[in-house]
Order: sequence, then structure tokens, then C-alpha cells
Amino acid sequence: MFIARVVGTVVATRKAESLVGHKFLLLRQVNGEGKDTANYVVATDAVGAGEGDVVLYASGSSARQTQITHEKPCDAVVMAIIDSWEVGPKRIYDKSKA
Amino acid sequence: MFIARVVGTVVATRKAESLVGHKFLLLRQVNGEGKDTANYVVATDAVGAGEGDVVLYASGSSARQTQITHEKPCDAVVMAIIDSWEVGPKRIYDKSKA
Amino acid sequence: MFIARVVGTVVATRKAESLVGHKFLLLRQVNGEGKDTANYVVATDAVGAGEGDVVLYASGSSARQTQITHEKPCDAVVMAIIDSWEVGPKRIYDKSKA
Amino acid sequence: MFIARVVGTVVATRKAESLVGHKFLLLRQVNGEGKDTANYVVATDAVGAGEGDVVLYASGSSARQTQITHEKPCDAVVMAIIDSWEVGPKRIYDKSKA
Amino acid sequence: MFIARVVGTVVATRKAESLVGHKFLLLRQVNGEGKDTANYVVATDAVGAGEGDVVLYASGSSARQTQITHEKPCDAVVMAIIDSWEVGPKRIYDKSKA
Repeated sequence: MFIARVVGTVVATRKAESLVGHKFLLLRQVNGEGKDTANYVVATDAVGAGEGDVVLYASGSSARQTQITHEKPCDAVVMAIIDSWEVGPKRIYDKSKA
Repeated sequence: MFIARVVGTVVATRKAESLVGHKFLLLRQVNGEGKDTANYVVATDAVGAGEGDVVLYASGSSARQTQITHEKPCDAVVMAIIDSWEVGPKRIYDKSKA
Repeated sequence: MFIARVVGTVVATRKAESLVGHKFLLLRQVNGEGKDTANYVVATDAVGAGEGDVVLYASGSSARQTQITHEKPCDAVVMAIIDSWEVGPKRIYDKSKA
Repeated sequence: MFIARVVGTVVATRKAESLVGHKFLLLRQVNGEGKDTANYVVATDAVGAGEGDVVLYASGSSARQTQITHEKPCDAVVMAIIDSWEVGPKRIYDKSKA
Repeated sequence: MFIARVVGTVVATRKAESLVGHKFLLLRQVNGEGKDTANYVVATDAVGAGEGDVVLYASGSSARQTQITHEKPCDAVVMAIIDSWEVGPKRIYDKSKA
């Protein structure tokens, strides 16, 4: 999984039938030190994430292992909202203080 | 999924039997800020996209989760045509104004 | 899928049993503008491609969706030989004139 | 598989139901010469790894081939803790001396 | 598949149960011109490869399509030992002369 920040939403009326009702989040990947990278990805949301949340997303066939993405043409899913993470003794991110 | 712009079409008469009738779109990936990247990918079309459309495509086994790509040697599919997207308060792309 | 040029062949006598008889093509990836990239990949051939052909190849599990690659340890397959492609009004490649 | 060092843990209370109880490790990829790369990945732990351990992780659908990750939206798993590795005659890493 | 040189072995006593007995080879990827790249990967061996061999490896779910890797948390497998390869008229590698 990779860490990312939800930076926006993507609206698409015309889409594969099985995706009707899906919410597409625009994510910007964040590295382990908490810094933005240049990588963006669009993911379906399985946990009720919203703009500003720092999340984990899974890619590939693993992205289809949730109820809402099962057997759908979706290759990235937000499967967790991060509370915090640490590298050694240093707290890199803390949602309660963000 | 990634955001891309449909920039052309690829014609291939000789192809795996199961792909006869498939339309191959040439996509150029666009980043979250709406800028062209150097990455090109060829995708099958599941939503009737055409040149100039800004789309979402899914890769890998997820690309086979549509009726037309099911069990075919196809690793990228256009599964949505984007109407618009925003990053924070800023509208990056709006099809109706493009 | 990605566009590539067949630049050579790879000979391997000792290989997984299920791959006996397979032909391995060395591909050099070409970008949407028709320029060689630095990326090489070795693919199995499902369409009778030969040196000099410009082709499409599929990767990952999608590479196993042909008769000759089914359930084999093969992660890239040439599934089409390109006749031509265009970017906007410009013909980038035309096999008949290559 | 890739070699990585466990550099921290990621806490996420809200996550896909099937992931409740999962431990998320933050990994920093290490190259074959034992040097840190800029790549971070978050993986589920299948072997009881902890901070400071140098490990192997598997990605994609292969990450779901353990009891704890089976059919879960998880695309990376730590499946081995490295004791040592060598490049030619040179021992690059030795856990007992680390 | 990618071309790589076997540069070493990785020892890991503690690993997912299904991997007991597996041999992990450290590979350094080689490009189509026969030059070392900066990419290292660890793969399971399905063909009896050893240090110094130049091999092909398959990644992702395709890496599980051998008897020894079936349903295992393994995402890369050496599935062929290369005898030789050519780019156009030029022989890049010849095992018998290496």
C-alpha cells in the first residue's frame, strides 16, 4: 500500500456500468517522511475518506477485494484512513494535530 | 486509475483472435494538476471515448473487468470519461469549458 | 498495452517445462511520438511477430489470456502487430512506409 | 520480491472491515548493495517482523497468498525476515552483526 | 519478462510457512544492450539457476505459474536461463563465451 493525501474528487458521468455510484478520489502520494511526491492516482473510496484525509490505498487486483469494488474495473481503492505514523521515535503524522 | 487524454488511435489488423473488433486508443497520461506527462499507454475503450476526451483508465487484471475486455489479453481499459475534477477549491478541468 | 519495436530474440534452452517451444522476443518500448525509450522487455509472441515489427504487448496476468500463454509463467505477450497510429492529424507510424 | 528495512508503523483505526486487526509496517526499500532507496511502501506483516528488521516483501496478488491476507484489500506483505545476503563473495548484510 | 544476472543469494530462516525450502536469488536487472541497471529484485528459482547465470524472470501473478511457486506469496520467479540473445545482427550475450 502507499500513503497518500486526498486532494480532490473526479466527476465522471459516463463510465462503465458497474461503476455507477462510485466516488473517485484524487490522491497525491506522500512518502514515508510525510512529503508530497509528484505521483497522483485516482482511487475508489471504501472507507468514507474525504478531502484532506491522509490514507492508505491498495492497487491492482487487491483493489477489488472490497464489497464495493468486487469484480469492477477499478485498480486502486482507499482501504484505510491513517491516524498516525512514526519512523523510529519520530511521529511523522498525527491526524489529531493536523 | 490514472487520468489521461485520448491523443490518437492505433490500428492493428493482425492481433490475438479474441481482440478482433477492439478499438485501441492512444492515451497520454495527465497529472493531477492537469499537465501532460511523458507517459503514453494504449487502452481498449469501454465507454465510447474519442480523441480529445479526458478519461480514466484502469490497468492490470482490473482492465479485464468489463464486458468487452473479459478474459482478453488487454491490460488497460478506458472505463470513464471525465467531466471535471478539482484540487481543493480549484477546478483543474471542466469538459464543458474545454 | 505499450508500443514496442521487436529488436531481437532471446534463446533459452533451460526453462520452466510449460514454456518449452515458446519464442521469446526482445522488445524495445517506443513512446507515443514514435521514439525509442530506454525500456526493454522480453515477451512471448502470440501473433507471429518478427524483428522490425512494431507491436503492442500486454503485461501481467493479461499476458496469460492467450492460448499459448494460458497458465504459464509469462508476464508479457505480443498480442498485436501495429499497422499505423496517429496523434491528432499526424501519422506517427505507417508500416507500409516503414 | 524486494528487500526493505522496517522503519516504522502506520496506525489506522478506520479501515476496510476485513483488515481489522492487521498491523501495517512502513518499509523503506533497500537495494542489492544494502543502501536505502527513496521508495517507501506500507505492508501487512505475515512473519512477526518489527522495527529494524530487514525483510522481503511481495507485492500485488502474491501479497494475498498468506493466511492473514487471503482475499483482503492488501497489495504488499512481509513474507520473510532476512538473515543475510551476499553479492558474489561479499556479505552485504548479516543480521547477527547488525 | 526481464533479463537479469544472478548476483547472489538471500538467506531467510523466518518466512511464510509455504515458502520453507525456497531458494531466494538476488538478481540485478540487465538491459537489452547487456548493461547492468540499478534495479535489483529477489526471485524464487524454478530452473536451477546459480550465481553468474543470466536469466529471465517473470513478475506478479505470472510468477506463481510454476509448480514450486503455486499459491505462494512470491511475486518473481526465474523461469529460464538465457543461452544467448541478439539485437539485430549483433550478438549481445553468449553463455558459451561468457
